[in-house]
Amino acid sequence: MVVAGFEETRLQSRQLAEALGCPWREIEIHRFPDGESRVTVPADLSGTVVVHRSLDRPNDKLVELALAAAALREQGCDRLLLVAPYLCYMRQDFAFHPGEAVAQKIVGQLLARYFDGLVTVDPHLHRIDRLEQAVPLQHAVSLSSATVMSRYLATGARNRLLLGPDEESEQWVEAIARRAGLPYAVADKRRMGDRELVISLPKEAGEFDAVVLVDDIASTGTTLAETAWQLTELGITQIEAIVTHALFCGDAWDRLKQAGIDAVASSDSISHPSNRLFLAPLLADAVREWAS
Amino acid sequence: MVVAGFEETRLQSRQLAEALGCPWREIEIHRFPDGESRVTVPADLSGTVVVHRSLDRPNDKLVELALAAAALREQGCDRLLLVAPYLCYMRQDFAFHPGEAVAQKIVGQLLARYFDGLVTVDPHLHRIDRLEQAVPLQHAVSLSSATVMSRYLATGARNRLLLGPDEESEQWVEAIARRAGLPYAVADKRRMGDRELVISLPKEAGEFDAVVLVDDIASTGTTLAETAWQLTELGITQIEAIVTHALFCGDAWDRLKQAGIDAVASSDSISHPSNRLFLAPLLADAVREWAS
Repeated sequence: MVVAGFEETRLQSRQLAEALGCPWREIEIHRFPDGESRVTVPADLSGTVVVHRSLDRPNDKLVELALAAAALREQGCDRLLLVAPYLCYMRQDFAFHPGEAVAQKIVGQLLARYFDGLVTVDPHLHRIDRLEQAVPLQHAVSLSSATVMSRYLATGARNRLLLGPDEESEQWVEAIARRAGLPYAVADKRRMGDRELVISLPKEAGEFDAVVLVDDIASTGTTLAETAWQLTELGITQIEAIVTHALFCGDAWDRLKQAGIDAVASSDSISHPSNRLFLAPLLADAVREWAS
Repeated sequence: MVVAGFEETRLQSRQLAEALGCPWREIEIHRFPDGESRVTVPADLSGTVVVHRSLDRPNDKLVELALAAAALREQGCDRLLLVAPYLCYMRQDFAFHPGEAVAQKIVGQLLARYFDGLVTVDPHLHRIDRLEQAVPLQHAVSLSSATVMSRYLATGARNRLLLGPDEESEQWVEAIARRAGLPYAVADKRRMGDRELVISLPKEAGEFDAVVLVDDIASTGTTLAETAWQLTELGITQIEAIVTHALFCGDAWDRLKQAGIDAVASSDSISHPSNRLFLAPLLADAVREWAS
Protein backbone atom coordinates (compact mmCIF):
# COMPACT_ATOMS: atom_id res chain seq x y z
CA MET A 1 0.00 0.00 0.00
CA VAL A 2 1.12 3.53 -0.89
CA VAL A 3 -0.33 6.93 0.01
CA ALA A 4 -0.37 9.37 -2.93
CA GLY A 5 -0.87 13.04 -2.10
CA PHE A 6 -1.02 16.44 -3.77
CA GLU A 7 0.95 19.62 -3.19
CA GLU A 8 -1.71 21.62 -1.32
CA THR A 9 -2.02 19.07 1.52
CA ARG A 10 1.40 17.45 1.24
CA LEU A 11 1.95 17.61 5.00
CA GLN A 12 -1.36 15.90 5.80
CA SER A 13 -0.88 13.09 3.30
CA ARG A 14 2.68 12.52 4.53
CA GLN A 15 1.36 12.24 8.09
CA LEU A 16 -1.23 9.72 6.91
CA ALA A 17 1.51 7.63 5.28
CA GLU A 18 3.56 7.82 8.48
CA ALA A 19 0.58 6.77 10.60
CA LEU A 20 0.09 3.81 8.24
CA GLY A 21 3.78 2.99 8.08
CA CYS A 22 3.69 2.95 4.29
CA PRO A 23 5.48 4.92 1.54
CA TRP A 24 4.30 8.37 0.42
CA ARG A 25 4.37 9.58 -3.15
CA GLU A 26 3.27 12.76 -4.89
CA ILE A 27 0.80 13.19 -7.73
CA GLU A 28 2.06 16.18 -9.67
CA ILE A 29 -0.17 18.85 -11.16
CA HIS A 30 0.87 21.37 -13.79
CA ARG A 31 -1.68 24.01 -14.74
CA PHE A 32 -1.23 25.18 -18.32
CA PRO A 33 -1.79 28.83 -19.24
CA ASP A 34 -5.10 27.84 -20.92
CA GLY A 35 -6.56 26.42 -17.69
CA GLU A 36 -6.00 22.75 -18.47
CA SER A 37 -4.28 20.56 -15.87
CA ARG A 38 -1.57 18.02 -16.57
CA VAL A 39 -1.57 15.20 -14.01
CA THR A 40 1.44 12.92 -13.49
CA VAL A 41 1.16 9.95 -11.15
CA PRO A 42 4.20 8.01 -9.87
CA ALA A 43 5.01 5.64 -12.71
CA ASP A 44 5.91 2.59 -10.66
CA LEU A 45 2.77 2.02 -8.57
CA SER A 46 0.54 -1.04 -8.69
CA GLY A 47 -1.89 -2.80 -6.37
CA THR A 48 -3.46 -0.66 -3.64
CA VAL A 49 -3.16 3.12 -3.67
CA VAL A 50 -4.65 5.51 -1.11
CA VAL A 51 -5.24 8.83 -2.91
CA HIS A 52 -5.40 11.68 -0.38
CA ARG A 53 -7.05 14.91 -1.51
CA SER A 54 -9.43 17.29 0.21
CA LEU A 55 -12.03 18.68 -2.17
CA ASP A 56 -12.38 22.32 -1.14
CA ARG A 57 -12.50 24.71 -4.19
CA PRO A 58 -13.44 21.50 -5.95
CA ASN A 59 -13.87 21.79 -9.71
CA ASP A 60 -10.19 21.75 -10.74
CA LYS A 61 -9.54 19.09 -8.13
CA LEU A 62 -12.38 16.84 -9.29
CA VAL A 63 -11.16 16.87 -12.89
CA GLU A 64 -7.59 16.22 -11.72
CA LEU A 65 -8.74 13.37 -9.47
CA ALA A 66 -10.49 11.72 -12.39
CA LEU A 67 -7.30 12.08 -14.46
CA ALA A 68 -5.14 10.71 -11.62
CA ALA A 69 -7.41 7.74 -10.91
CA ALA A 70 -7.63 6.79 -14.59
CA ALA A 71 -3.83 7.07 -14.96
CA LEU A 72 -3.28 4.89 -11.86
CA ARG A 73 -5.69 2.24 -13.21
CA GLU A 74 -3.89 2.33 -16.56
CA GLN A 75 -0.71 1.38 -14.68
CA GLY A 76 -2.34 -1.56 -12.97
CA CYS A 77 -3.42 -0.11 -9.63
CA ASP A 78 -6.45 -2.27 -8.98
CA ARG A 79 -7.63 -0.89 -5.61
CA LEU A 80 -8.03 2.84 -5.25
CA LEU A 81 -9.19 4.40 -2.00
CA LEU A 82 -10.00 8.10 -1.98
CA VAL A 83 -9.30 9.78 1.36
CA ALA A 84 -11.03 13.17 1.06
CA PRO A 85 -11.08 14.69 4.56
CA TYR A 86 -13.29 17.45 3.15
CA LEU A 87 -15.83 16.14 0.64
CA CYS A 88 -17.33 18.68 -1.77
CA TYR A 89 -20.88 19.24 -2.98
CA MET A 90 -22.48 17.49 0.02
CA ARG A 91 -24.59 20.58 0.81
CA GLN A 92 -26.34 20.49 -2.58
CA ASP A 93 -28.55 17.58 -1.63
CA PHE A 94 -31.95 18.73 -2.86
CA ALA A 95 -33.47 20.62 -5.82
CA PHE A 96 -34.59 23.77 -4.00
CA HIS A 97 -35.96 25.07 -7.30
CA PRO A 98 -37.18 23.06 -10.31
CA GLY A 99 -34.29 22.09 -12.59
CA GLU A 100 -31.53 22.40 -9.97
CA ALA A 101 -28.94 19.69 -10.30
CA VAL A 102 -28.69 17.60 -7.12
CA ALA A 103 -24.92 17.83 -7.14
CA GLN A 104 -24.45 15.69 -4.03
CA LYS A 105 -25.68 12.64 -5.90
CA ILE A 106 -24.14 13.45 -9.29
CA VAL A 107 -20.67 14.15 -7.90
CA GLY A 108 -21.03 11.10 -5.62
CA GLN A 109 -21.70 8.92 -8.66
CA LEU A 110 -18.77 10.47 -10.50
CA LEU A 111 -16.37 9.67 -7.63
CA ALA A 112 -17.77 6.16 -7.34
CA ARG A 113 -16.82 5.50 -10.97
CA TYR A 114 -13.16 6.23 -10.35
CA PHE A 115 -12.58 4.87 -6.83
CA ASP A 116 -13.27 1.61 -4.96
CA GLY A 117 -13.70 3.25 -1.59
CA LEU A 118 -14.02 6.62 0.09
CA VAL A 119 -13.12 7.90 3.55
CA THR A 120 -14.19 11.38 4.64
CA VAL A 121 -14.75 13.39 7.84
CA ASP A 122 -17.96 15.14 8.93
CA PRO A 123 -19.64 15.33 5.51
CA HIS A 124 -22.50 17.82 5.61
CA LEU A 125 -25.41 15.36 5.21
CA HIS A 126 -28.86 16.81 5.93
CA ARG A 127 -31.50 14.87 4.11
CA ILE A 128 -29.80 11.49 3.96
CA ASP A 129 -28.60 9.25 6.80
CA ARG A 130 -25.72 7.42 5.24
CA LEU A 131 -22.86 8.53 2.99
CA GLU A 132 -23.49 5.55 0.67
CA GLN A 133 -26.74 7.22 -0.39
CA ALA A 134 -24.65 10.08 -1.83
CA VAL A 135 -21.59 8.14 -2.95
CA PRO A 136 -22.73 4.71 -4.14
CA LEU A 137 -19.77 2.67 -2.94
CA GLN A 138 -19.88 -0.34 -0.66
CA HIS A 139 -17.06 1.19 1.30
CA ALA A 140 -18.02 4.86 1.85
CA VAL A 141 -16.94 5.76 5.36
CA SER A 142 -17.97 8.92 7.15
CA LEU A 143 -15.76 9.60 10.18
CA SER A 144 -16.64 12.00 12.96
CA SER A 145 -14.21 14.60 14.25
CA ALA A 146 -16.04 14.54 17.62
CA THR A 147 -13.32 12.56 19.44
CA VAL A 148 -10.49 14.71 18.07
CA MET A 149 -12.38 17.89 18.95
CA SER A 150 -13.30 16.80 22.48
CA ARG A 151 -9.71 15.75 23.15
CA TYR A 152 -8.55 19.23 22.11
CA LEU A 153 -11.24 21.01 24.13
CA ALA A 154 -10.55 18.91 27.23
CA THR A 155 -7.13 20.57 27.53
CA GLY A 156 -8.74 24.01 28.08
CA ALA A 157 -10.95 25.65 30.72
CA ARG A 158 -14.07 23.89 32.06
CA ASN A 159 -16.48 26.80 32.45
CA ARG A 160 -17.05 27.36 28.73
CA LEU A 161 -20.33 26.76 26.91
CA LEU A 162 -19.98 24.71 23.73
CA LEU A 163 -22.49 26.26 21.31
CA GLY A 164 -23.70 24.47 18.15
CA PRO A 165 -25.14 26.40 15.18
CA ASP A 166 -28.55 24.72 14.83
CA GLU A 167 -30.81 21.93 16.06
CA GLU A 168 -29.49 19.56 13.41
CA SER A 169 -26.05 19.71 15.01
CA GLU A 170 -27.28 18.80 18.50
CA GLN A 171 -26.32 15.13 18.51
CA TRP A 172 -22.81 15.90 17.27
CA VAL A 173 -22.31 18.83 19.68
CA GLU A 174 -23.58 16.73 22.60
CA ALA A 175 -21.07 13.98 21.78
CA ILE A 176 -18.17 16.47 21.72
CA ALA A 177 -19.32 18.24 24.92
CA ARG A 178 -19.84 15.03 26.87
CA ARG A 179 -16.36 13.70 26.14
CA ALA A 180 -14.75 17.12 26.71
CA GLY A 181 -16.62 17.61 30.00
CA LEU A 182 -18.22 20.89 28.86
CA PRO A 183 -21.81 22.13 29.02
CA TYR A 184 -23.47 22.63 25.63
CA ALA A 185 -26.42 24.22 23.83
CA VAL A 186 -27.48 24.87 20.22
CA ALA A 187 -28.74 28.02 18.50
CA ASP A 188 -31.56 28.31 16.00
CA LYS A 189 -30.46 29.25 12.48
CA ARG A 190 -32.45 30.22 9.41
CA ARG A 191 -30.54 30.80 6.16
CA MET A 192 -31.78 33.45 3.68
CA GLY A 193 -28.94 33.34 1.09
CA ASP A 194 -25.20 32.70 0.68
CA ARG A 195 -24.31 35.35 3.26
CA GLU A 196 -27.57 36.18 5.04
CA LEU A 197 -29.04 34.37 7.99
CA VAL A 198 -31.04 34.85 11.17
CA ILE A 199 -29.67 33.35 14.38
CA SER A 200 -31.46 33.07 17.72
CA LEU A 201 -29.31 32.29 20.73
CA PRO A 202 -30.46 29.76 23.34
CA LYS A 203 -31.17 31.17 26.83
CA GLU A 204 -28.17 29.27 28.29
CA ALA A 205 -25.82 31.53 26.32
CA GLY A 206 -26.29 34.38 28.77
CA GLU A 207 -25.15 32.29 31.71
CA PHE A 208 -21.48 31.94 30.70
CA ASP A 209 -18.51 34.28 30.41
CA ALA A 210 -16.84 32.13 27.77
CA VAL A 211 -18.34 30.40 24.74
CA VAL A 212 -16.82 28.04 22.20
CA LEU A 213 -18.68 28.05 18.89
CA VAL A 214 -18.53 24.72 17.11
CA ASP A 215 -19.42 23.95 13.48
CA ASP A 216 -18.61 21.43 10.81
CA ILE A 217 -17.86 23.95 8.04
CA ALA A 218 -16.72 27.57 8.17
CA SER A 219 -17.28 28.82 4.64
CA THR A 220 -18.07 32.54 4.41
CA GLY A 221 -17.84 32.67 8.22
CA THR A 222 -21.29 34.26 8.36
CA THR A 223 -22.74 31.84 10.95
CA LEU A 224 -19.77 32.18 13.31
CA ALA A 225 -19.50 35.97 12.91
CA GLU A 226 -23.22 36.62 13.32
CA THR A 227 -23.38 34.41 16.43
CA ALA A 228 -20.32 36.14 17.87
CA TRP A 229 -21.89 39.60 17.36
CA GLN A 230 -24.96 38.48 19.29
CA LEU A 231 -22.88 36.98 22.10
CA THR A 232 -20.94 40.23 22.35
CA GLU A 233 -24.23 42.11 22.71
CA LEU A 234 -25.04 39.82 25.65
CA GLY A 235 -21.78 40.94 27.23
CA ILE A 236 -19.81 37.77 26.56
CA THR A 237 -16.20 38.69 25.92
CA GLN A 238 -14.39 35.39 25.55
CA ILE A 239 -15.46 33.81 22.28
CA GLU A 240 -13.57 31.01 20.57
CA ALA A 241 -14.48 28.80 17.63
CA ILE A 242 -13.70 25.23 16.67
CA VAL A 243 -14.53 23.89 13.21
CA THR A 244 -13.83 20.76 11.24
CA HIS A 245 -13.46 22.27 7.78
CA ALA A 246 -11.68 25.64 7.54
CA LEU A 247 -12.87 26.72 4.09
CA PHE A 248 -12.69 30.43 5.03
CA CYS A 249 -13.69 31.89 1.66
CA GLY A 250 -12.60 35.40 0.75
CA ASP A 251 -12.58 37.73 3.77
CA ALA A 252 -14.09 35.16 6.17
CA TRP A 253 -11.02 35.04 8.39
CA ASP A 254 -11.00 38.82 8.88
CA ARG A 255 -14.72 38.88 9.59
CA LEU A 256 -14.30 36.41 12.44
CA LYS A 257 -11.68 38.60 14.09
CA GLN A 258 -13.84 41.71 13.62
CA ALA A 259 -16.74 39.85 15.23
CA GLY A 260 -14.63 39.39 18.35
CA ILE A 261 -13.63 35.74 18.01
CA ASP A 262 -10.35 35.45 19.93
CA ALA A 263 -9.13 32.10 18.69
CA VAL A 264 -10.09 29.58 16.03
CA ALA A 265 -9.07 25.92 16.00
CA SER A 266 -9.71 23.80 12.92
CA SER A 267 -8.89 20.31 11.77
CA ASP A 268 -6.26 19.93 9.05
CA SER A 269 -8.83 18.64 6.55
CA ILE A 270 -8.09 21.90 4.70
CA SER A 271 -4.69 23.61 5.16
CA HIS A 272 -5.14 26.83 7.14
CA PRO A 273 -3.16 28.74 9.81
CA SER A 274 -5.89 27.78 12.32
CA ASN A 275 -5.20 24.03 12.01
CA ARG A 276 -4.87 22.56 15.52
CA LEU A 277 -6.56 19.15 15.15
CA PHE A 278 -4.67 16.50 13.23
CA LEU A 279 -6.74 13.89 11.47
CA ALA A 280 -4.01 11.45 10.38
CA PRO A 281 -4.53 8.87 13.22
CA LEU A 282 -8.31 8.84 12.67
CA LEU A 283 -7.93 8.49 8.88
CA ALA A 284 -5.24 5.82 9.25
CA ASP A 285 -7.56 3.61 11.35
CA ALA A 286 -10.23 3.82 8.64
CA VAL A 287 -7.74 3.05 5.87
CA ARG A 288 -6.43 0.03 7.79
CA GLU A 289 -9.94 -1.31 8.17
CA TRP A 290 -10.60 -0.91 4.43
CA ALA A 291 -7.33 -2.58 3.48
CA SER A 292 -7.78 -5.55 5.80
CA MET B 1 -35.51 19.88 -30.12
CA VAL B 2 -34.20 22.70 -27.91
CA VAL B 3 -30.79 24.39 -27.76
CA ALA B 4 -29.57 25.00 -24.18
CA GLY B 5 -26.71 27.45 -23.74
CA PHE B 6 -24.63 29.08 -21.04
CA GLU B 7 -23.98 32.72 -20.22
CA GLU B 8 -20.44 33.02 -21.59
CA THR B 9 -21.47 32.07 -25.16
CA ARG B 10 -25.12 33.08 -25.00
CA LEU B 11 -24.92 34.84 -28.38
CA GLN B 12 -23.44 31.82 -30.14
CA SER B 13 -25.95 29.34 -28.73
CA ARG B 14 -28.83 31.69 -29.60
CA GLN B 15 -27.52 31.90 -33.18
CA LEU B 16 -27.37 28.10 -33.31
CA ALA B 17 -31.01 27.88 -32.16
CA GLU B 18 -31.98 30.44 -34.79
CA ALA B 19 -30.15 28.55 -37.52
CA LEU B 20 -32.00 25.40 -36.44
CA GLY B 21 -35.34 27.19 -36.09
CA CYS B 22 -35.80 25.78 -32.58
CA PRO B 23 -36.25 27.32 -29.10
CA TRP B 24 -33.29 28.50 -27.04
CA ARG B 25 -33.03 28.12 -23.27
CA GLU B 26 -30.39 28.97 -20.70
CA ILE B 27 -28.62 26.67 -18.24
CA GLU B 28 -27.90 28.86 -15.22
CA ILE B 29 -24.70 28.70 -13.20
CA HIS B 30 -24.20 30.17 -9.76
CA ARG B 31 -20.71 29.98 -8.29
CA PHE B 32 -20.77 29.83 -4.50
CA PRO B 33 -18.09 31.62 -2.46
CA ASP B 34 -16.49 28.23 -1.70
CA GLY B 35 -15.88 27.44 -5.38
CA GLU B 36 -18.77 25.04 -5.85
CA SER B 37 -21.13 25.57 -8.79
CA ARG B 38 -24.91 25.34 -8.67
CA VAL B 39 -26.39 24.33 -12.02
CA THR B 40 -30.04 24.90 -12.90
CA VAL B 41 -31.43 23.52 -16.15
CA PRO B 42 -34.80 24.61 -17.62
CA ALA B 43 -37.32 22.51 -15.68
CA ASP B 44 -39.70 21.75 -18.54
CA LEU B 45 -37.44 20.07 -21.08
CA SER B 46 -37.76 16.51 -22.34
CA GLY B 47 -36.76 14.54 -25.44
CA THR B 48 -33.83 15.94 -27.44
CA VAL B 49 -31.61 18.70 -26.05
CA VAL B 50 -28.60 20.25 -27.78
CA VAL B 51 -26.25 21.49 -25.04
CA HIS B 52 -23.95 24.21 -26.42
CA ARG B 53 -20.77 24.94 -24.48
CA SER B 54 -17.21 25.61 -25.55
CA LEU B 55 -14.67 24.05 -23.21
CA ASP B 56 -11.92 26.66 -22.92
CA ARG B 57 -10.70 27.14 -19.29
CA PRO B 58 -12.30 23.74 -18.92
CA ASN B 59 -12.31 22.36 -15.37
CA ASP B 60 -15.23 24.34 -13.94
CA LYS B 61 -17.10 23.88 -17.21
CA LEU B 62 -16.56 20.10 -17.29
CA VAL B 63 -17.95 19.65 -13.77
CA GLU B 64 -20.89 21.94 -14.60
CA LEU B 65 -21.55 20.04 -17.84
CA ALA B 66 -21.72 16.76 -15.94
CA LEU B 67 -24.15 18.33 -13.46
CA ALA B 68 -26.28 19.79 -16.28
CA ALA B 69 -26.39 16.57 -18.29
CA ALA B 70 -27.35 14.49 -15.24
CA ALA B 71 -30.06 17.01 -14.28
CA LEU B 72 -31.46 16.95 -17.85
CA ARG B 73 -31.55 13.14 -17.85
CA GLU B 74 -33.30 13.18 -14.47
CA GLN B 75 -36.03 15.25 -16.10
CA GLY B 76 -36.50 12.79 -18.92
CA CYS B 77 -34.30 14.26 -21.66
CA ASP B 78 -33.33 11.06 -23.44
CA ARG B 79 -31.11 12.41 -26.24
CA LEU B 80 -28.34 14.81 -25.33
CA LEU B 81 -26.02 16.25 -27.96
CA LEU B 82 -23.02 18.25 -26.81
CA VAL B 83 -21.99 21.01 -29.22
CA ALA B 84 -18.57 22.08 -27.98
CA PRO B 85 -17.07 24.29 -30.72
CA TYR B 86 -13.82 24.25 -28.72
CA LEU B 87 -13.09 20.86 -27.22
CA CYS B 88 -10.65 20.78 -24.29
CA TYR B 89 -7.77 18.44 -23.46
CA MET B 90 -7.29 17.26 -27.06
CA ARG B 91 -3.60 18.27 -26.99
CA GLN B 92 -2.80 15.88 -24.11
CA ASP B 93 -2.90 12.82 -26.31
CA PHE B 94 0.24 10.99 -25.20
CA ALA B 95 2.20 10.27 -22.00
CA PHE B 96 5.33 12.31 -22.75
CA HIS B 97 6.73 11.17 -19.41
CA PRO B 98 5.96 7.96 -17.47
CA GLY B 99 2.85 8.38 -15.31
CA GLU B 100 1.34 11.27 -17.27
CA ALA B 101 -2.41 11.00 -17.57
CA VAL B 102 -3.51 10.85 -21.21
CA ALA B 103 -6.21 13.43 -20.61
CA GLN B 104 -7.51 13.37 -24.18
CA LYS B 105 -8.81 9.85 -23.68
CA ILE B 106 -9.92 10.21 -20.03
CA VAL B 107 -11.88 13.41 -20.62
CA GLY B 108 -13.26 11.91 -23.83
CA GLN B 109 -14.58 8.92 -21.88
CA LEU B 110 -16.04 11.24 -19.24
CA LEU B 111 -17.97 13.23 -21.86
CA ALA B 112 -19.14 10.04 -23.54
CA ARG B 113 -20.78 8.94 -20.28
CA TYR B 114 -22.97 12.03 -20.11
CA PHE B 115 -23.82 12.69 -23.77
CA ASP B 116 -25.15 10.69 -26.71
CA GLY B 117 -23.32 12.69 -29.34
CA LEU B 118 -20.67 15.37 -29.77
CA VAL B 119 -20.05 18.02 -32.42
CA THR B 120 -16.85 20.07 -32.36
CA VAL B 121 -14.71 22.19 -34.71
CA ASP B 122 -11.02 21.69 -35.53
CA PRO B 123 -10.10 19.54 -32.52
CA HIS B 124 -6.31 19.41 -32.14
CA LEU B 125 -5.76 15.73 -33.01
CA HIS B 126 -2.16 14.74 -33.62
CA ARG B 127 -1.67 11.07 -32.95
CA ILE B 128 -5.15 9.82 -33.77
CA ASP B 129 -7.10 10.07 -37.02
CA ARG B 130 -10.67 10.14 -35.84
CA LEU B 131 -12.40 11.96 -32.97
CA GLU B 132 -14.16 8.73 -31.95
CA GLN B 133 -10.79 7.40 -30.81
CA ALA B 134 -10.70 10.17 -28.20
CA VAL B 135 -14.41 10.44 -27.42
CA PRO B 136 -15.93 6.96 -27.68
CA LEU B 137 -19.32 7.92 -29.11
CA GLN B 138 -20.86 6.58 -32.29
CA HIS B 139 -21.73 10.14 -33.20
CA ALA B 140 -18.58 12.19 -32.54
CA VAL B 141 -18.33 14.73 -35.36
CA SER B 142 -15.27 16.83 -36.04
CA LEU B 143 -16.10 19.77 -38.32
CA SER B 144 -13.49 21.80 -40.19
CA SER B 145 -13.48 25.59 -40.17
CA ALA B 146 -11.68 25.56 -43.55
CA THR B 147 -14.76 26.59 -45.57
CA VAL B 148 -15.69 29.39 -43.17
CA MET B 149 -12.08 30.64 -43.15
CA SER B 150 -11.64 30.54 -46.91
CA ARG B 151 -14.92 32.39 -47.41
CA TYR B 152 -13.67 35.13 -45.08
CA LEU B 153 -10.23 35.30 -46.70
CA ALA B 154 -11.71 35.38 -50.22
CA THR B 155 -13.15 38.83 -49.45
CA GLY B 156 -9.63 40.30 -48.97
CA ALA B 157 -6.58 40.93 -51.16
CA ARG B 158 -5.19 38.17 -53.44
CA ASN B 159 -1.44 38.73 -53.12
CA ARG B 160 -1.15 37.46 -49.52
CA LEU B 161 0.68 34.29 -48.50
CA LEU B 162 -1.33 32.02 -46.20
CA LEU B 163 1.23 30.60 -43.77
CA GLY B 164 0.57 27.51 -41.62
CA PRO B 165 2.51 26.86 -38.38
CA ASP B 166 3.93 23.39 -39.11
CA GLU B 167 3.98 20.47 -41.51
CA GLU B 168 1.11 18.80 -39.73
CA SER B 169 -1.18 21.67 -40.66
CA GLU B 170 -0.36 21.49 -44.39
CA GLN B 171 -3.45 19.61 -45.55
CA TRP B 172 -5.77 21.96 -43.68
CA VAL B 173 -3.92 25.11 -44.82
CA GLU B 174 -3.92 23.89 -48.42
CA ALA B 175 -7.70 23.36 -48.29
CA ILE B 176 -8.27 26.90 -46.99
CA ALA B 177 -5.84 28.47 -49.49
CA ARG B 178 -7.26 26.63 -52.49
CA ARG B 179 -10.84 27.74 -51.77
CA ALA B 180 -9.77 31.30 -50.92
CA GLY B 181 -7.62 31.57 -54.06
CA LEU B 182 -4.44 32.36 -52.08
CA PRO B 183 -0.89 30.94 -52.26
CA TYR B 184 0.21 29.00 -49.18
CA ALA B 185 3.22 27.57 -47.34
CA VAL B 186 3.93 26.07 -43.91
CA ALA B 187 6.68 26.81 -41.38
CA ASP B 188 8.66 24.32 -39.33
CA LYS B 189 7.98 24.43 -35.59
CA ARG B 190 9.70 22.73 -32.67
CA ARG B 191 8.17 23.22 -29.20
CA MET B 192 10.48 23.36 -26.14
CA GLY B 193 7.90 24.22 -23.39
CA ASP B 194 4.63 26.08 -22.77
CA ARG B 195 6.06 29.34 -24.10
CA GLU B 196 9.27 28.40 -25.89
CA LEU B 197 9.61 27.25 -29.47
CA VAL B 198 11.85 27.39 -32.50
CA ILE B 199 10.27 28.36 -35.81
CA SER B 200 11.88 28.19 -39.24
CA LEU B 201 10.17 30.10 -42.04
CA PRO B 202 9.75 28.56 -45.50
CA LYS B 203 11.64 30.26 -48.32
CA GLU B 204 8.37 31.43 -49.94
CA ALA B 205 7.81 33.78 -47.00
CA GLY B 206 10.33 36.29 -48.35
CA GLU B 207 8.52 36.62 -51.69
CA PHE B 208 5.41 38.38 -50.35
CA ASP B 209 4.64 41.81 -48.89
CA ALA B 210 1.66 40.50 -46.97
CA VAL B 211 1.26 37.30 -44.95
CA VAL B 212 -1.76 35.80 -43.21
CA LEU B 213 -0.78 33.44 -40.39
CA VAL B 214 -3.30 30.65 -39.88
CA ASP B 215 -3.60 28.30 -36.90
CA ASP B 216 -6.24 26.20 -35.18
CA ILE B 217 -5.51 27.42 -31.63
CA ALA B 218 -4.00 30.66 -30.34
CA SER B 219 -3.25 29.90 -26.70
CA THR B 220 -0.30 31.86 -25.31
CA GLY B 221 0.13 33.41 -28.76
CA THR B 222 3.76 32.31 -28.81
CA THR B 223 3.62 30.64 -32.23
CA LEU B 224 1.94 33.61 -33.91
CA ALA B 225 4.13 36.21 -32.17
CA GLU B 226 7.40 34.39 -32.85
CA THR B 227 6.50 33.87 -36.51
CA ALA B 228 5.51 37.54 -36.83
CA TRP B 229 8.87 38.68 -35.36
CA GLN B 230 10.71 36.62 -37.95
CA LEU B 231 8.55 37.90 -40.81
CA THR B 232 9.23 41.47 -39.64
CA GLU B 233 12.97 40.75 -39.78
CA LEU B 234 12.48 39.67 -43.40
CA GLY B 235 10.98 43.11 -44.04
CA ILE B 236 7.36 41.98 -44.26
CA THR B 237 5.14 44.72 -42.86
CA GLN B 238 1.62 43.52 -43.43
CA ILE B 239 0.95 40.61 -41.10
CA GLU B 240 -2.50 39.33 -40.23
CA ALA B 241 -3.64 36.22 -38.40
CA ILE B 242 -6.66 33.98 -38.65
CA VAL B 243 -7.37 31.32 -36.02
CA THR B 244 -10.19 28.98 -35.17
CA HIS B 245 -9.96 29.04 -31.39
CA ALA B 246 -9.13 32.39 -29.75
CA LEU B 247 -8.01 31.16 -26.33
CA PHE B 248 -5.62 34.12 -25.90
CA CYS B 249 -4.40 33.29 -22.39
CA GLY B 250 -3.03 36.07 -20.17
CA ASP B 251 -1.15 38.70 -22.17
CA ALA B 252 -1.36 36.80 -25.48
CA TRP B 253 -3.45 39.47 -27.18
CA ASP B 254 -0.95 42.25 -26.32
CA ARG B 255 1.98 40.12 -27.46
CA LEU B 256 0.44 39.71 -30.90
CA LYS B 257 0.11 43.48 -31.33
CA GLN B 258 3.67 44.02 -30.09
CA ALA B 259 4.87 41.44 -32.61
CA GLY B 260 3.42 43.58 -35.40
CA ILE B 261 0.27 41.62 -36.22
CA ASP B 262 -2.13 44.22 -37.67
CA ALA B 263 -5.37 42.30 -37.52
CA VAL B 264 -6.65 39.04 -36.07
CA ALA B 265 -9.77 37.20 -37.16
CA SER B 266 -11.09 34.28 -35.13
CA SER B 267 -14.11 32.04 -35.16
CA ASP B 268 -16.70 32.54 -32.43
CA SER B 269 -15.94 29.12 -30.89
CA ILE B 270 -14.64 31.19 -27.92
CA SER B 271 -16.03 34.69 -27.31
CA HIS B 272 -13.35 37.28 -28.10
CA PRO B 273 -13.24 40.77 -29.65
CA SER B 274 -11.46 39.24 -32.67
CA ASN B 275 -14.45 37.02 -33.59
CA ARG B 276 -15.16 37.47 -37.32
CA LEU B 277 -16.15 33.94 -38.40
CA PHE B 278 -19.54 32.69 -37.28
CA LEU B 279 -19.92 28.97 -36.84
CA ALA B 280 -23.69 28.70 -36.30
CA PRO B 281 -24.59 27.60 -39.88
CA LEU B 282 -21.84 24.94 -39.90
CA LEU B 283 -22.87 23.63 -36.46
CA ALA B 284 -26.56 23.68 -37.38
CA ASP B 285 -25.96 21.42 -40.38
CA ALA B 286 -24.19 18.89 -38.16
CA VAL B 287 -26.93 19.01 -35.53
CA ARG B 288 -29.61 18.48 -38.18
CA GLU B 289 -27.78 15.43 -39.49
CA TRP B 290 -27.52 13.97 -35.95
CA ALA B 291 -31.19 14.61 -35.23
CA SER B 292 -32.46 13.11 -38.49
